[in-house]
Amino acid sequence: MTRIAIIGAGPSGMAQLRAFQSAKAKGQQVPEIVCFEKQNDWGGLWNYTWRTGVDQHGNPVHGSMYRYLWSNGPKEALEFADYTFDEHFKKAIASYPPRAVLWDYIKGRVEKVGVKDQVRFNTTVNNVEFNSDNQQFTVAVHDHYQNQTYAEQFDYVIVASGHFSTPNVPEFKGFNIFNGRILHAHDFRDAVQFKDKNILIVGSSYSAEDVGSQCYKYGAKHIYSCYRSQPMGYKWPKNWSEKQKLLHVDENTAYFADGTCAQVDAIILCTGYLHHFPYMAEDLCLKTHNCLYPEGLYQGVVWEKNPRLFYLGMQDQWYTFNMFDAQAWYVRDLILQQQTLPTQAEMQQHTQQWVQKEQKLKNAEQMIKFQGDYIKKLIAETDYPSFNIDAVNDIFMQWKKHKKENIMGFRDKVYRSVMTGKMAKPHHTSWLYALDDSLESYLDNDNHEPKAM
Amino acid sequence: MTRIAIIGAGPSGMAQLRAFQSAKAKGQQVPEIVCFEKQNDWGGLWNYTWRTGVDQHGNPVHGSMYRYLWSNGPKEALEFADYTFDEHFKKAIASYPPRAVLWDYIKGRVEKVGVKDQVRFNTTVNNVEFNSDNQQFTVAVHDHYQNQTYAEQFDYVIVASGHFSTPNVPEFKGFNIFNGRILHAHDFRDAVQFKDKNILIVGSSYSAEDVGSQCYKYGAKHIYSCYRSQPMGYKWPKNWSEKQKLLHVDENTAYFADGTCAQVDAIILCTGYLHHFPYMAEDLCLKTHNCLYPEGLYQGVVWEKNPRLFYLGMQDQWYTFNMFDAQAWYVRDLILQQQTLPTQAEMQQHTQQWVQKEQKLKNAEQMIKFQGDYIKKLIAETDYPSFNIDAVNDIFMQWKKHKKENIMGFRDKVYRSVMTGKMAKPHHTSWLYALDDSLESYLDNDNHEPKAM
Repeated sequence: MTRIAIIGAGPSGMAQLRAFQSAKAKGQQVPEIVCFEKQNDWGGLWNYTWRTGVDQHGNPVHGSMYRYLWSNGPKEALEFADYTFDEHFKKAIASYPPRAVLWDYIKGRVEKVGVKDQVRFNTTVNNVEFNSDNQQFTVAVHDHYQNQTYAEQFDYVIVASGHFSTPNVPEFKGFNIFNGRILHAHDFRDAVQFKDKNILIVGSSYSAEDVGSQCYKYGAKHIYSCYRSQPMGYKWPKNWSEKQKLLHVDENTAYFADGTCAQVDAIILCTGYLHHFPYMAEDLCLKTHNCLYPEGLYQGVVWEKNPRLFYLGMQDQWYTFNMFDAQAWYVRDLILQQQTLPTQAEMQQHTQQWVQKEQKLKNAEQMIKFQGDYIKKLIAETDYPSFNIDAVNDIFMQWKKHKKENIMGFRDKVYRSVMTGKMAKPHHTSWLYALDDSLESYLDNDNHEPKAM
Repeated sequence: MTRIAIIGAGPSGMAQLRAFQSAKAKGQQVPEIVCFEKQNDWGGLWNYTWRTGVDQHGNPVHGSMYRYLWSNGPKEALEFADYTFDEHFKKAIASYPPRAVLWDYIKGRVEKVGVKDQVRFNTTVNNVEFNSDNQQFTVAVHDHYQNQTYAEQFDYVIVASGHFSTPNVPEFKGFNIFNGRILHAHDFRDAVQFKDKNILIVGSSYSAEDVGSQCYKYGAKHIYSCYRSQPMGYKWPKNWSEKQKLLHVDENTAYFADGTCAQVDAIILCTGYLHHFPYMAEDLCLKTHNCLYPEGLYQGVVWEKNPRLFYLGMQDQWYTFNMFDAQAWYVRDLILQQQTLPTQAEMQQHTQQWVQKEQKLKNAEQMIKFQGDYIKKLIAETDYPSFNIDAVNDIFMQWKKHKKENIMGFRDKVYRSVMTGKMAKPHHTSWLYALDDSLESYLDNDNHEPKAM
């Protein structure tokens, strides 16, 4: 029987499990699926862990999530087309759910259909190789329940291990003598630890903006953030200073390119993540920076050099959960041979067109539309429920506008679901004053009337 | 030509390089040696890094050392028999050198003889397998200079990657809600970060005692340490409380088995390390807890199931650098066929005798003598310079007594070298008040007269 290995049971892996189950429910013959997950539950990054560094088995911790994290984009932009928030929560909720609420949502869809027995938890993939003799992959894993390694053969491999788990950690002059704490956002867990502290945020992308905002919300004394090329440029609170490039540090002070300096207690490196697949053989290993159209992946998912291998969710992401769905449905149909692939040369040519198109993109609006177009094309090829991607593009643009207006208040806004046509219900407490991020607290919004957006 | 792979260029790997070079200098034919080192310099743990978690390549950080670490045992117990401290520093120094001084010392011996070109730095070993067809090992590595993986064949493999790099990180109830910092000693870097803080040290072995002492020295407000079975029992300062077992924590408080509790800002897990060889094939992989005589290793070093594979330094360690030497010289002579091995059954029987002997050891003195006896036997088999191991055993016993007398003052004591017969020279400043741990500061002891011990 045909066998498929899925590496990782995070949002992408779960989408792939759901895609196959959906075909099976419609009466199709589906191969045997084994999903390897290094953590002891599914959800990937959304499965919070207090651990940092290496886990209980000595492997790098997958989780990069921190306590109090709320979605940094509207839920209406990531909603599943086949499983709405209303279906899961049975009532309207607000637009920027905390981590626990989103974890509950993505688990809800797959728990409903019973695919968890396809996942081998606590199992780390050590090595993936392709044997041209029998056209199969050997997947070598470590089962941490038994503390044993073993290998199995598969006809297809789908890499769904994410790319926000391996921190990119640059060194700055003086880090070897700085007395305070130096950590990457990957190891940030609780903003309360930085109450009354002066902190330096290195970076100017999503982590910088959100980790800094967390620290502000939970009482940091002063936040300095620094950028290489462009400031984030939001209307920051009084105790947040955006600085030019970090040049170096000494025991307790950071020095910036504009000639200023600041005493800081901790340095949080919000310097991004690496695409990191140490278990993939050289000829199977995706090497890319974070971009909207990685080279080597036809339709963003098919490993051109060996189209029995797929990568899910390796793009930079405006779209998330529903993009993973579109990819997973498409990969499923390729494996089920309901789609055919062009030649390798044609695939490469097709990818090059998209790569060149990406290089010409000038602003966020164009990038959002680019990714929307990509998803439209994938969805058109499968039976994934079609949805109004132009409307989601508009939600992203509204979201950006709301952030520009009020970086500490944008999460109080609500948006209309393109899946249900219904408006979200404002949360009972403004994000800035909602210190309890539990699912229970967030869902307890019944005694509150929705306000207009 | 015969090829040998050494995994790791820390103290054990460096000892192995020196052992072969020493034979070569005496005119012996020596195989080709390739030493793979994941860090960008040699010295293993003694090569300090500010990094925690994963390194710049996404691999777990090897280093567990912290700033201000001074040797926790007398240098006279770890001195090389073929390269004394006096030879290296050209003058008498004190008995408990800081990290930088010991790093300088262990580098000095191998730099003098020019073996660094045998080390491939920035190279992580991913996989080691044995092919019974050709009786060779395939060693697959990742060269981070080129960001490329490659594999080579070797006749012998010597694992020298240490066992104080992969933290053993237990979970206690409430860790998922504790607001403060939770870190393993592996990620502890600078005690200054804990100034004026209440800290909880979990554990009662060397890390607990030393990390706690560091925090005391650099101004922690209160130190709580807790044990599972026995307290450390030293005469602690007033602001250090030894507690029974940790039961659980909540947002900011730790609860102990004796019914007491304490508000703490940070929890430092001094809970030991794992023997962790994720790159070794199942049939080659040493699985052991931390003990004086690991099962499966004849003479503490030979992999009984396949005596072309060796493990150095995998014992629990009273003896360190000179024990690695004894092992490295012995392994060298086995590979050079100047020693012969008994049958597998005989090796296993021999190991069992030692393992049973270890199980009967009742106290530290017996354990020290046990390890001393082990080293005596190894040295007797090679040309490693013989030294007075009974005298070193005595140094260990004096060291223990000095700790019992004054845990914050024992590092001010000096001892006599068994290699040179000369007394160490007391340091210019008591350890407790010596806040600068640089090599320069430590060696600047010329204007001070030695005091009697």
